[in-house]
Amino acid sequence: MFVRPRLDIDLHRILENYLSFSKAKKNPNTQMAAVVKDNAYGLGDQEVAATLYHRGACRVFFVAHGFEGHRVRAVAPLADIYVLQGPGEEDIKCFAEDNLIPVIASPAQLAFWNREKPNHRKPAIQIETGLNRLGFRVSDIAALSDAERNQFGLVLSHLACADEPNHAMNQRQLDMFRQLAPSFPQAKLSLSASDGFMLGDDYQFDIVRLGAVLYGLNPVPGFPIKSRNVIRVTAPVLQIADVYPGDCIGYGADHVVNKSGKIAIISIGYGDGVFRSFYPKGKVWFESDRQLFAAPMCGRVSMDNLICDVSQVPDNILYHSRFVSLINDAYTADDFGVDAGTIGYEVISALGHGTRFIRTYSS
Amino acid sequence: MFVRPRLDIDLHRILENYLSFSKAKKNPNTQMAAVVKDNAYGLGDQEVAATLYHRGACRVFFVAHGFEGHRVRAVAPLADIYVLQGPGEEDIKCFAEDNLIPVIASPAQLAFWNREKPNHRKPAIQIETGLNRLGFRVSDIAALSDAERNQFGLVLSHLACADEPNHAMNQRQLDMFRQLAPSFPQAKLSLSASDGFMLGDDYQFDIVRLGAVLYGLNPVPGFPIKSRNVIRVTAPVLQIADVYPGDCIGYGADHVVNKSGKIAIISIGYGDGVFRSFYPKGKVWFESDRQLFAAPMCGRVSMDNLICDVSQVPDNILYHSRFVSLINDAYTADDFGVDAGTIGYEVISALGHGTRFIRTYSS
Repeated sequence: MFVRPRLDIDLHRILENYLSFSKAKKNPNTQMAAVVKDNAYGLGDQEVAATLYHRGACRVFFVAHGFEGHRVRAVAPLADIYVLQGPGEEDIKCFAEDNLIPVIASPAQLAFWNREKPNHRKPAIQIETGLNRLGFRVSDIAALSDAERNQFGLVLSHLACADEPNHAMNQRQLDMFRQLAPSFPQAKLSLSASDGFMLGDDYQFDIVRLGAVLYGLNPVPGFPIKSRNVIRVTAPVLQIADVYPGDCIGYGADHVVNKSGKIAIISIGYGDGVFRSFYPKGKVWFESDRQLFAAPMCGRVSMDNLICDVSQVPDNILYHSRFVSLINDAYTADDFGVDAGTIGYEVISALGHGTRFIRTYSS
Repeated sequence: MFVRPRLDIDLHRILENYLSFSKAKKNPNTQMAAVVKDNAYGLGDQEVAATLYHRGACRVFFVAHGFEGHRVRAVAPLADIYVLQGPGEEDIKCFAEDNLIPVIASPAQLAFWNREKPNHRKPAIQIETGLNRLGFRVSDIAALSDAERNQFGLVLSHLACADEPNHAMNQRQLDMFRQLAPSFPQAKLSLSASDGFMLGDDYQFDIVRLGAVLYGLNPVPGFPIKSRNVIRVTAPVLQIADVYPGDCIGYGADHVVNKSGKIAIISIGYGDGVFRSFYPKGKVWFESDRQLFAAPMCGRVSMDNLICDVSQVPDNILYHSRFVSLINDAYTADDFGVDAGTIGYEVISALGHGTRFIRTYSS
């Protein structure tokens, strides 16, 4: 009798993903960085960073916040750790103590950094090339003095549509990046995250920021190298019950049974990061000897539970299964995302923030 | 210069909500329980339970898991703590150490409980009356011996459609609950959570399980007592930039600008629990002297950021705002939920699991 869901994280697979994508780089001098912000998309920043640092020789990490950099520094003593949101009053101390490199995104941030000057690292600058998110605009760059331009050690930008290889925006951003980068003669260049890397050699420059593909996501489906799934999410079967035509299932009596069958109540819900939007298209999986049996969602996701239709699961499997899987090698976070109307990134992040999982790491 | 989002939780408001709904009960002997499962919907189970226990004289709490009961026991030494999912191998120890009361939902769970017998509390039984989720079915109840029926101290069921007062399911579940409850002659009765409480005196019985209304949610809009919002979610304005016709904003170049204007980049994203589905209908708020100015989302929500249109925010407000609010007293989790295509419960739970917030409690 079990009641808690489980999240098993495969650090070895994360390492393999890092290494297999790293091998595909064009220029041997291109550094393959690991993006471990947001607690490594919820999967454990220190566990992931330590694995890639010690076993993958990864020496460049990206986080979003200074306090995240502080956590990564503890396991990656000699790495370059870039902080994508730049410094704030809440985390400026970390820059001093942990020798973090800020990614400066605006003139105001540059002024703040130069006033505080918590360490002697050359900061990075983020420039805006079409995403219209964080970054120096063309006019901001034009207003910089030579001394200011020379202080940067890295120029970074971010692609808006790299998961759509044929989108015209990609070439446009590449052109603009190439045009603006020479304003910073001392700086290395970084344009691409996982999906940008897949756009081709031109997009790789000095540093590639691998995030999604470390964590089993495949933002560009056709790419010859596949990122392998790195998590298993499983949850206990609490109860199996019969249902009859006319029965209503779940909140709002939303799902109405039209044929006698069976349901299972599973111990995981939106409190654990299973989006309510996972109903009605989602399914969970009964497993046996590598065979998977789908149990489609029936009824809205509750905070602690979900309900699935197990009428098609053979009895010998059904009544011997103590767990179902929600994410497995055959039904990944990307697949889950499609069924929930979102993307794998958000799926991993939401599940990764769940606090009721029994969490294990294999390495 | 700030970069971290903030989550301010008003324990005094939670207490006020508890007290104002408690006052509305029909029978002075009805106990008003507090539902603090899932870390009090993400807002802090120990903080909430301690407040209600010490300042609200609340003596009955509901959690989902044994380990959650363990956390609540630490701050509520003499309370009755019910565990909605019943006992599991992972948390059975807590039942012994913390004198928790299981809610038994199936014959298999009853057998497990009676075999383990970790304490001498009379367990509760959950019976199924129409939600088709956890609980003893009619046939399961029929199969119980008299001794088994007499061992229960509470009969509990849960309504499927209580947030729709005119839904026929409510009366049907009430009738069935009344019909089945006498099978358990020693037991108190509990049918309703917050929304069921609002259906009227008939639904109140011995224990009402207040959850949603503690946390500022109003699942039944027309009810005369209002639950007051209990959280403020704010996030730093990282940058303000001009945009021009034809500019694309955010991932997928999804949002295209048709009129010159201004955008702001805000330091909060789906990594912090702001659903991607918050775009395109959502908005964030610039605040000044109790005036609120809406800044509609423009562009998809990123993991660490969102982008909003600030063209309609007066310059004297815009350029002096270091933060925007995402949830405030005028735009609550319920409102946020509508704009994100979900319900306030899921909004609070997702934000409440965010680990990058600077979190404060006021009491």
